[in-house]
Amino acid sequence: MERQDKDLAFMLQYENIAWYEDGKVKILDRRIYPAQKSFVVCKTHQEVTQAIRDMVTQSAGPFTAAAMGMALAAWECRDLPKTDQLDYLEKASENISHARPTTVKRMALITGGCLEAAKKALNEGKDTALAVRDYAVESNDIRYAKVAKIAEYLVDMIPDRGTVMTQCFAETIVGQMLRVARQRGKTFKMVCPETRPFFQGARLTATVCHDMGFDTTVITDNMPAWYMETEGVDVFTCAADAICMDGHVVNKVGTRQIAIVAKYMGVPMFVTGAPDRGHPDAASIKIEMRDPEFPLQAMGVRTADRGVKGWYPSFDITPPHLISGIVTDRGIYSPYDLNRYFEKGELGLYEMVV
Amino acid sequence: MERQDKDLAFMLQYENIAWYEDGKVKILDRRIYPAQKSFVVCKTHQEVTQAIRDMVTQSAGPFTAAAMGMALAAWECRDLPKTDQLDYLEKASENISHARPTTVKRMALITGGCLEAAKKALNEGKDTALAVRDYAVESNDIRYAKVAKIAEYLVDMIPDRGTVMTQCFAETIVGQMLRVARQRGKTFKMVCPETRPFFQGARLTATVCHDMGFDTTVITDNMPAWYMETEGVDVFTCAADAICMDGHVVNKVGTRQIAIVAKYMGVPMFVTGAPDRGHPDAASIKIEMRDPEFPLQAMGVRTADRGVKGWYPSFDITPPHLISGIVTDRGIYSPYDLNRYFEKGELGLYEMVV
Repeated sequence: MERQDKDLAFMLQYENIAWYEDGKVKILDRRIYPAQKSFVVCKTHQEVTQAIRDMVTQSAGPFTAAAMGMALAAWECRDLPKTDQLDYLEKASENISHARPTTVKRMALITGGCLEAAKKALNEGKDTALAVRDYAVESNDIRYAKVAKIAEYLVDMIPDRGTVMTQCFAETIVGQMLRVARQRGKTFKMVCPETRPFFQGARLTATVCHDMGFDTTVITDNMPAWYMETEGVDVFTCAADAICMDGHVVNKVGTRQIAIVAKYMGVPMFVTGAPDRGHPDAASIKIEMRDPEFPLQAMGVRTADRGVKGWYPSFDITPPHLISGIVTDRGIYSPYDLNRYFEKGELGLYEMVV
Repeated sequence: MERQDKDLAFMLQYENIAWYEDGKVKILDRRIYPAQKSFVVCKTHQEVTQAIRDMVTQSAGPFTAAAMGMALAAWECRDLPKTDQLDYLEKASENISHARPTTVKRMALITGGCLEAAKKALNEGKDTALAVRDYAVESNDIRYAKVAKIAEYLVDMIPDRGTVMTQCFAETIVGQMLRVARQRGKTFKMVCPETRPFFQGARLTATVCHDMGFDTTVITDNMPAWYMETEGVDVFTCAADAICMDGHVVNKVGTRQIAIVAKYMGVPMFVTGAPDRGHPDAASIKIEMRDPEFPLQAMGVRTADRGVKGWYPSFDITPPHLISGIVTDRGIYSPYDLNRYFEKGELGLYEMVV
């Protein structure tokens, strides 16, 4: 399948899109981007799982990688009898969706959708791997259309010539937000905390913002409060790894801290995404703890002395009283009123993953 | 002059003590310590000024370096007529005290004290350079005695087996605090945010704490709020580059942010030092803005893409309503009640610099 349209070009440029082709999945290595542009090549779906676990790709990237991993799994088992293929794909779905503990449920939505696409292709005697890949691309289109709607509502909240502070890398929504702003002739300053220990803010968010022609400043993670005080920030916005039905939001560690500071400084905080019925409340969230040694280095250079301990939660949880609004494709909701989102109907499978 | 006692050993080990000898000042390069232990050697007092400006030394280090720079200046002009020597030293005092804009007043106290010591030596026909160095060492002893008293009051505020969060590197007070705790048989966990962009927390504070046998954890600067929430912190404490008479506190950028978070999380914040009559209020503070490109790298490796802007205020200002107490050598004061500190008498010249 060839796709030359603008959306794919956009995705290829701004998403760490993982791509299945000829028995391999290639994933842009965001751990070193933009200093180097290189790809991790996975030859088995287990390698895709490991790449997601190793944070080769981030933000929305793992979801695309998961779907492409399912296409690879379909290729791996292509010569087995039909029932064995389904069995193999079910195990692959289980494997890939458990790459990272905080996102198991959302991942399972994707890999489950891929499984259905593969079943259909098997019944129709089609190439299962390509069918899964087509499904992944179509689903991304649906997701993009949804994100574009979110971006429209979000840009409404930003004053022209204002200043927007972000947190971590949400390339889909950041890219769409800036696109919508350009279409409307609106401009604003982007301020990106660097997002230790992986520097996604400095390396990825800031690169996207600058490439799209916006005035972009990177600050270290201890500077948001002083920046708000002295330079002024109009809106703090971030995406979420999960939006619980009770309004608690899971996102990159550091989000809660900026949320507290923003509340104190009178800066509204808008979280983009869709509420997740798989997570009724904060208690349903398992925060992934990663290698505690990792924050003891920066860009590969050791910072602390031997014997000093590290600590590395991937995410944190921000309570609803710090959040001004959840910006969805269906409008902006109070974090206390998320059930109303579903009054407009249930979501399609892939729509749940923004 | 030879000094072998414990206090100097402590200073040599834990302070970036600058040392004048034979027409040179050697300063431990804290920008790369503890990965490498090397010294910057200054052959003129202007080089000492530049070293302070370049942040070769930090925390209390610049004040020691300034005094040793004055000893060097005395050596430089030793062959001039007496009145020319005094003229030369006055200019050196002006030069060194202006190394960094935020600390001009406190620096001038030190270099002014050195000037007096040199005058006295000149009148008595003694070696001016060694007289200034002796003055610097004696002054450090006075300062240490004062810091030891502060440490006693501070340790009172920390529950046994509790957890203390710090900010940046205040080796004098951190070292003395841990010493006093050990003497009392008290122990606690130390949590040190890494303090970007120079990593003083990761490289320096954590090294001191670990060396002194305390359980020490380094976190990135976006983690304090989540650490407080999930692991618990009993006390947040930091030193100050200036404590204004109206209770505003100037310290390493990021202090204000942790102060906001600590207030929100119900964690008391104690600031160590002495109120500074040279700074009646926050309006009297000039925050030094450093090279904006510096935060766009970490440990020498570029993080952000070219074209992205940086921003680098060295310090920030924390308002009194976020501060639980100013811990001085004369007891703990409300940040709103600092005039009372001086009811117990004025400070000696060097006592003003903690």
